Formats: sequence, structure tokens, C-alpha cells
Amino acid sequence: MKNVKKVLLEEHEMPKQWYNIVADMSGEMLPSLHPGTGQPIGPDDLAPLFPVGLIEQEVSRERYIDIPEEVQDIYKIWRPSPLVRASRFEKFLDAPVKIYFKNESVSPAGSHKPNTAVPQAYYNYKEGVKSMTTETGAGQWGSALAFACELFGIDLKVFMVKVSFEQKPYRQFMMNTWGASVVASPSLLTAAGKQILAEDPDSPGSLGIAISEAIEMAVKDEKTRYSLGSVLNHVLLHQTIIGEEAIRQFEKIDQYPDVVIGCFGGGSNFAGISFPFLRGNLTGGQNTRIVAVEPHSCPKLTRGKFQYDFGDTIGMTPLIPMYTLGHKFIPPKIHAGGLRYHGAGPIISQLLKDGLIEATAIPQNESFAAGIAFARTEGIIPAPETNHAIAQVIREANKAKEEGVEKTIVFNFSGHGLVDMAAYDQYLKGQLSDFSISDQQIKESIESSTVLPAMS
Amino acid sequence: MKNVKKVLLEEHEMPKQWYNIVADMSGEMLPSLHPGTGQPIGPDDLAPLFPVGLIEQEVSRERYIDIPEEVQDIYKIWRPSPLVRASRFEKFLDAPVKIYFKNESVSPAGSHKPNTAVPQAYYNYKEGVKSMTTETGAGQWGSALAFACELFGIDLKVFMVKVSFEQKPYRQFMMNTWGASVVASPSLLTAAGKQILAEDPDSPGSLGIAISEAIEMAVKDEKTRYSLGSVLNHVLLHQTIIGEEAIRQFEKIDQYPDVVIGCFGGGSNFAGISFPFLRGNLTGGQNTRIVAVEPHSCPKLTRGKFQYDFGDTIGMTPLIPMYTLGHKFIPPKIHAGGLRYHGAGPIISQLLKDGLIEATAIPQNESFAAGIAFARTEGIIPAPETNHAIAQVIREANKAKEEGVEKTIVFNFSGHGLVDMAAYDQYLKGQLSDFSISDQQIKESIESSTVLPAMS
Repeated sequence: MKNVKKVLLEEHEMPKQWYNIVADMSGEMLPSLHPGTGQPIGPDDLAPLFPVGLIEQEVSRERYIDIPEEVQDIYKIWRPSPLVRASRFEKFLDAPVKIYFKNESVSPAGSHKPNTAVPQAYYNYKEGVKSMTTETGAGQWGSALAFACELFGIDLKVFMVKVSFEQKPYRQFMMNTWGASVVASPSLLTAAGKQILAEDPDSPGSLGIAISEAIEMAVKDEKTRYSLGSVLNHVLLHQTIIGEEAIRQFEKIDQYPDVVIGCFGGGSNFAGISFPFLRGNLTGGQNTRIVAVEPHSCPKLTRGKFQYDFGDTIGMTPLIPMYTLGHKFIPPKIHAGGLRYHGAGPIISQLLKDGLIEATAIPQNESFAAGIAFARTEGIIPAPETNHAIAQVIREANKAKEEGVEKTIVFNFSGHGLVDMAAYDQYLKGQLSDFSISDQQIKESIESSTVLPAMS
Repeated sequence: MKNVKKVLLEEHEMPKQWYNIVADMSGEMLPSLHPGTGQPIGPDDLAPLFPVGLIEQEVSRERYIDIPEEVQDIYKIWRPSPLVRASRFEKFLDAPVKIYFKNESVSPAGSHKPNTAVPQAYYNYKEGVKSMTTETGAGQWGSALAFACELFGIDLKVFMVKVSFEQKPYRQFMMNTWGASVVASPSLLTAAGKQILAEDPDSPGSLGIAISEAIEMAVKDEKTRYSLGSVLNHVLLHQTIIGEEAIRQFEKIDQYPDVVIGCFGGGSNFAGISFPFLRGNLTGGQNTRIVAVEPHSCPKLTRGKFQYDFGDTIGMTPLIPMYTLGHKFIPPKIHAGGLRYHGAGPIISQLLKDGLIEATAIPQNESFAAGIAFARTEGIIPAPETNHAIAQVIREANKAKEEGVEKTIVFNFSGHGLVDMAAYDQYLKGQLSDFSISDQQIKESIESSTVLPAMS
């Protein structure tokens, strides 16, 4: 078993529970607040948006939560996913490192997103919901939810960030193929979209704006529910199946990672790979470094401020305690659309504040250089988001070489780039920008977005 | 093991030999002929195009041929591929059938093509070749060979059929990402291309034309070799790993198929899934139906003529004994670019002539309807080529229902459609044509292409 390329699990070895890291966090987490009253929000505030099954998970403090059998059955279309030794990439890097990746690109939608799309569609279906809305950046989330909703007979409307809508038509067509309807955001379908377009008719959109539109659309219709693909506790919870599998796979080859790396947008794939290893740090005496990798041009973890902020641009969500660039921050048009988000989820923000995880930022060109090196050695072409994680793997490998220290690294291969090939074309032609953000820009964005005073 | 969704093999269970069906064919196969002399071609005639290792396989009569360890190592990036029970699709069809598919879309290039691209690049590399040429239709083959050549440090130039070059830019970008250069065919780089463009400046191209160009380019430079992604014996040989794995997977669940189905362009994925099962018919007392599925608009198996013909449009290849629509036949612009080829490989043609396999033809719209039904139940979006196999599965299921007979069906899921989403968009908008071909068109094409008299 030790020299295999792919460490596999049989279906019967697939974990049957998700891991809720909140149970193992020592400090009390700050509550999200109702923006009108300033009071902590409760389940009732969330009821117009989410089914009870998901709200219960959102506020749960249970350590483990059972994965429903119907969800397990669908997971088995592509799960357990392989843990792969990147042996050719290691050889190329010529550093004293073992590199493994958890290949989440094997799902029908090509990313880790179906891990939460399927249970979200399931809990809605169980409570009789027939119609849902959501937003999507690069289209990974929208296509995953389209796939999941189709399996449960739920109609889905997706607000897709306009710049991605234009850059990635294939993602739209995927969503259509799975029966969903797709609208470029900002749109004229919502008051939020109209407001943004009135201010800037050429707005490229952002996840924050698309969230505003999708929420507004769901709230308007009593029978429609909303779904978010990242940030929230229940979303991160569902993704932990990634790390739970990885731990079992490392056991099979008698290894354990020194560093766990995931790219970072709202936190879902990062949480998925890292939380089960973080449990090893919190409760199992392990000392694994956990590294979140964000884009240089959207640096909320490395240069943002920890304060209460809205999750969307218009201000329709609760106020969430998080590292943020300000909810009015519109990230530059990088191709890693899934990382173009102004804030981090509350759990991740707390973990970063408590020094339990690290964060780093990678410029767009460095990320694509890493992705090309990976594709030319391991074969698989990574998503632009995933390229950020790979670039950090290269940095870690180079550091290990300089220091002469052996390391075992695992990263989450969050998705493939086959629907993002135009980005690779532009990179190969030297047309990509790194979009530097000045301190002044960040300061102004945070100031103009501040609703409540900063937290210490 | 019986109720699993995916039947897996561990890497150590991966077959270590390819299966050469020629060893089990009772009748003597007709030789390919030198067009100048009319004499059977020998290894020397092939030496300017292929390395010795592949020429030996092309003419071999050994039943089993060892897979080199270096090739096995690369296969393990994605192999063994899963055999998947299409349980949700079965439920949708509501027929007395068990349906399995061999998922070849899990390779880095997204199709079965790397199964032969890797050994072809390997044997060239072993003999010191540093530069290769090939052609590609939809881009599946070109991208597979780009991936394989990159791993062995070989430069690759790909002539891509112009209609696909325009319809599928993402495939070009994939090839570029793996370091290959891509030219739209017909091009001005070759005499063959110039000749075609002089006759029809708007020529959409065809596999036949692209083959002419790639061969000319390889022959011109003594150090450059050529590679073909289908038709030839050694190509079909390499693909048999698909069926060899499938047989081992069916053993694990104590099943055996009544019907084996593959879509059909030049024969490589069809041969790959079916030849090992055909061995069961020829030597093991099995009685499995083996069905090749071609597009309605390129019907060489169902409406072509068995005669000597060129493999390319200009007439640079040997004369091959095959079912053909005439080498001058330019197939309509269907999206299943990998099936747009005028002839069938010599082994397949002989098997069809001997009544050992069946053939059927599917119109383009029926194929996409099948693909959509599959995507909406099983999740994975199939390649347009694969949709033809799925449409035939539906026909078989409906027949089984009418006849009240239980059946176990397996088909080759030759590739995913994520780089072909524009085709799905057009289908969903009702913009696809079935491109009917009249008997008169076929008659004229065959007559104008005839070099030697028809064979009985």
C-alpha cells in the first residue's frame, strides 16, 4: 500500500459523519447580529432562508453529525475521492517533500462544491421546498447546486457574477444542462441589482452583490429558499468529509501531514480539508500547520480587519464577526472567481484570530505558473482557485529545501480547470494582471463599510 | 461488494498486459496494400512514421503483450478506472435492465485517449524521438497526446479539424497548457492542406484531411514521427486495458454483461471496451452482443462499403481493407467530432463482415437527448461522442421492456462533455441538425473514392 499513486477508500469506508469543529473550539464564538436590533440572531431569523435541518446544523455544538443515507448514496457517485501522491510534481520541485493532494475534481461538477450542495438540496427537499435561489462566482457552486437540485426535483435560479458569466459561458451551459436557470448579476430582477446598476451600469458584479440578489429573490417568495455555497457553519460542516477521508487514507499509508493547504474564498474547501486535521491539533496532540491561501488581490485574511460586517454587498445578511475588506469591496477580475469574496466565514475568522491557522496571499501570475507546472507533471489541469494552493505548496517545498527539512504536505485539489481554459490561454499569452491593492484602498473600503465598531 | 455504486480495482489489480484480438480471429485478415505497388505493406513501409516498438505491435499475432512498467506508472494517475452502476439512470428508464458504465472520463484529458497516447509517446521516447505530429477531431486525441508527450519531453504539433478548432477553443488551450502547438486544418503548412484550400477555401476540415497534413509533416522531417489516435491495430491494442479491467470488475460483483456498447469513430474506445468480451465469445463460450454505435450522419458501418480505401483524404496512407464511405467523404459538422471519420479500422471491419459484432446509427438530436437524461440522473455530463452509446443503451432498455427480458448492459463512458458545453447549449436551444445523408451521396462518395475494385 505504501507505494501506490492513489490511496483509495472503498465505499463502505466512507465516513458516515461530518465533523463540527465548533465543539472543539475553546473560546466562545461571537454571535452573528441582527443589523436592525443589534441582537444575536436565532433560528427564527434564518427560517425564511433555510430549512430547519440546516438551521439546526448552523447552530449545533455536537461534535459529529450523521450524514443522511440518501446523501451518502449520492456521494457515492464520486466519493470517496482519491488521495494522490504528486510524485512527478515532487521530482520537478526537487525538494525534500512528500506531496499529496485530495482530488475533489472527480465530482460531476468538477469540484468539492457538491459535498454541501447535495445535503443542502436534500434538507430542502425533505421539508417540501420546490424552488431555490443561489449565487455563484466562477460557476463552481452554481453548477454543483444545479446538479444537486436536479436530483431532488427542485427548481433553481442562479445569480452568476457578471464577469464570470461572460468569461465562463460553459459553466452557464452546465447549469442549464442540469436544468437550472442562470442570470448575470447585477440583474434587473431585484431591487439590489437595480441599485448597483444605477450606481455603475458596467459593474462586473461580485459574490457579495449576487448574494444580495439571491437572498432578495428567496425572501420575496414564501415558498422559495436560499442556499449559500461557503462561509456558513453548516456549509463548512458538510465539507469536512474531505478531511475525514484524507485522515483515513493517510492511516492506510502510515503517514501524517506536517502542512495542510487549501485555497481560500469563503472557506469551504479550506475547512473541508483542514478541520479534521485541526482536530488533531486541538485534541490529539498533533502539531500540523494549517495554511489558508487567498489571492493577493482579495486579501481579507492577510490584510483585512476583524469586525462585524455584512456577508453581502447591499446589507441583507446578519452582521457576521469576520475578517473582511468591507462588504463594499469589489475584488478585481481575477479568474479565480471562487476566491473573489470580501470576507471570511466566522469560524475561520475566529481560528485565524486565535492563531490556530495561518494565512498567505498569492498573486495571480504566480498561481497560474504553479498550475501549469502541476499540469505538465501530474497531468490534471487545476482550477484557477486550486492554483493558489499549488503555488503555496511550491513555496513550502522551496522553504523545506532551503532549510534542509523533510516535510509531508497535503493540499486540497478543489477543482479542475477544464471549464476555465480561457484563463490559461490568457496566462500563456502573458495577458494576466496581478491587480495590486493599495493599503489606502483597503482602508477606505473598510471604513466605508463599517457598521459597528471594530472588535479587539 | 454487490451493492456498490462504483466497482473499484486497486492499482496492483490493474492488468499488466494488453489483449491482441488478432490472435483469436479465425480467418486470415486481409493485408493493407502499398498504393503504388499494390503489394502488402511491411514494417519497412511504416518505419518513416512509427517507432519499431509500435510497428511490432501493429503486425503482432501474440495474444497478450506486456504493458511496460513506465506506462503502467503513468496509467496509475487515473487507472484502474471505475466500473459504475448507473442505478439512477436505470430507475429513470424503468426497464428490466442493469446498466453499468466504464468511466474513462477520469483521465487528465477527460477521455479514454490517454490509454494509447501514453504508450505511443513512450515507445517514441525510448527510440529517441523528440518531435511528433498528429491530427485531432474534437480535440480529445490531440489533448491526450499533448499530455503524454509532455511527460516524455517530446514536442508535438497537432492538426485540429477546423470546425472543431472553432467550436472548441478550450481544447486548443488544453493542448497549449500541456506544451503542444495547435494548427487549424486544412492549413497552409502542408501541400495537402493547400490543395484542399484551393478546392474549397471554406473547407470545415475532416479527420481525413488532418491525417494527411500530419503525415506529410512527419514524413518531411526524418526525425519527426507521426501518431494516430484510432483505427490502427496497435492503437486498439492499447485500449483493451478498458475491457480487461471491466472483466475483472464484473468478476468482483459476480456479473457478466449480455450487451457491450461503445460509440464508434475509428474504433478505439469501442475496441477497448469490447475486445476482451469478444474473446469470451470467440474462445470462452460466451454469447454477448457487441454493438458499435456510429452517428447517423457518418454511417460507414451501417451504410458503407467493405473495400480497400485510404485512411486519409489525400491518399497518403496505405490502402486499408475497411468499411468506408469513401476517403473523400466529408462528414457533416456534428459536435461528436471524434466520430467524424469516413472509415473503420481493419480489425473492426473484418469483425463486422464476419458477423461477430453489430452496428447501429444514432441521429445527433437523439444522442443529446440521451446525454441530457444521463446527466440529470447520474450527474456526469457525457461527451457528444459518448452520447451515442447512451442513446443505444436507451434503445436496448426499451427493447428489453417491450420484450419483458432482463438484461445486463455495459457501455464505455468514453469521455466527459465539459469542454463541449457549447454543443449542449445549442441542443437546449433546439439548434442542432441531424444532417441526413442520402443513399445517392454515399454512392457518389464511394465511387469517386474507389481505388481498387470492391471485395466480396
